[in-house]
Amino acid sequence: MYDCAIIGSGAAGVSAALTLKALNVNFIWFGSRALSKKISSAEKIKNYPGLQDVSGEEMRAAFLRQIDGAGITLTEKTVTGVYPTGSAYTVLCGEELFEAKTVILATGVEAVKPVKGELEFLGKGVSYCATCDGALYRGKTVAVLCTQKEMEGEVRFLASLAKKVYLVPLCQGLEIAEKNVETVRGMPLEIKGNARAEQLVFRDFTLTIDGVFMLKSASPAVLVKGLETEEGQVKINRKTETNFKGLFAAGDCTGRPYQYAKAAGEGNVAAHAVFEYLK
Amino acid sequence: MYDCAIIGSGAAGVSAALTLKALNVNFIWFGSRALSKKISSAEKIKNYPGLQDVSGEEMRAAFLRQIDGAGITLTEKTVTGVYPTGSAYTVLCGEELFEAKTVILATGVEAVKPVKGELEFLGKGVSYCATCDGALYRGKTVAVLCTQKEMEGEVRFLASLAKKVYLVPLCQGLEIAEKNVETVRGMPLEIKGNARAEQLVFRDFTLTIDGVFMLKSASPAVLVKGLETEEGQVKINRKTETNFKGLFAAGDCTGRPYQYAKAAGEGNVAAHAVFEYLK
Repeated sequence: MYDCAIIGSGAAGVSAALTLKALNVNFIWFGSRALSKKISSAEKIKNYPGLQDVSGEEMRAAFLRQIDGAGITLTEKTVTGVYPTGSAYTVLCGEELFEAKTVILATGVEAVKPVKGELEFLGKGVSYCATCDGALYRGKTVAVLCTQKEMEGEVRFLASLAKKVYLVPLCQGLEIAEKNVETVRGMPLEIKGNARAEQLVFRDFTLTIDGVFMLKSASPAVLVKGLETEEGQVKINRKTETNFKGLFAAGDCTGRPYQYAKAAGEGNVAAHAVFEYLK
Repeated sequence: MYDCAIIGSGAAGVSAALTLKALNVNFIWFGSRALSKKISSAEKIKNYPGLQDVSGEEMRAAFLRQIDGAGITLTEKTVTGVYPTGSAYTVLCGEELFEAKTVILATGVEAVKPVKGELEFLGKGVSYCATCDGALYRGKTVAVLCTQKEMEGEVRFLASLAKKVYLVPLCQGLEIAEKNVETVRGMPLEIKGNARAEQLVFRDFTLTIDGVFMLKSASPAVLVKGLETEEGQVKINRKTETNFKGLFAAGDCTGRPYQYAKAAGEGNVAAHAVFEYLK
């Protein structure tokens, strides 16, 4: 049982991790050494105090040096669900299970809005996790929307199982040369079906599918059932408390401004709130 | 008329200034190139994302490089009052007057609590500003409490006017070798008097005085009459809004955790709130 689980490795996650470490809290941190798409893809950051006119890549390098220097480990797994279990939380990564007394959500915001029908068919043909649900589509036809090149491995995993994969890249540089992978260009408009998802509708054409995988940063409200949101963003107070006791949120997932300094600030506050809560 | 006045040059002020500059807002920034006592005196900072294990002096150097690089000017004046004037604010620095449509208070917290009687006799023998009120004590006897070595100049100014100065240093390294300056060691307990301040009471002795100067960072509630506070700290919401429209607050003056990242985050949010407000 960990004292805290941090989910997300953008500026908020980095800040929370450094502060929990300084406070000597026993935590697990889910994220990626890419840190975040937002950090690594930023062209020039002009207003983060302490790092003068850095590129995203330079900010990433500075953060990684600091994390490694502090002896902090990043657990490179994708969290697929967070479940309150009485006085603690269970964090699910596919079929793996972790327990923590508190959770800090620092998942960022996904630039891609939900497709019409996405939430309706979630669990009925729509999945966010290739590792978890891939096996259900062995020999079948799936569409895979993917917002991050880093998730290429999950697409390949699906291609190894499914008969046919329609890959809808919503990012640059994602190309998979497999016989059963067909790349489809365009933004899907709707997922249609009766009991389950059956069609992925684009402006000029429609794909017939058995399932749709949405490979993107998980939205907090999908991760945690019952999480209170406001216009799609996690509702917190100044202490970063959500409507669940022991569950805190920080960074872009809590709303504008979408800024590194704001995210780092909230990550720091969340770590202190966790510390107070554990006492 | 400026669009914004930032008061204070700790991490919150620095962050607000960098962001207002990036947003192309026309602002004036009151502070000191020492930035803040807290920054320059920190031994080792372990959890500020982006600056690995820096000393306060190194953080200060990094912030100054960035400020200078962005072409931002620090106005090294002490703000003595902020007055709402209809739709804008007047910022007073002694006898000098500046106008701004919005204000960001980033004054930090003063480690030294008010002395008993301090607020009662404010304006009746108690003053926070040597430049403003010094002339009233020409040829008289004053006590000067001073929490920052950087304010030495103000003590010298008072010594040039008053007959006698009792200097009560509440910091290290403050020594003034003038014939009419007597250094008094200890923490004053109370200011006593009838209509005006007449005595400064210590545990073992009492000074008879005509006035008491409290040379320390101004508390926001003293700067802005009617500012809503909670346990002595400025009450803000998540947008850093105070109970005055157009008046925002950020950093340690808004409460715990007293952390650089939290302060920088709030400074960033305040700058964006100003930008929204001006639109």
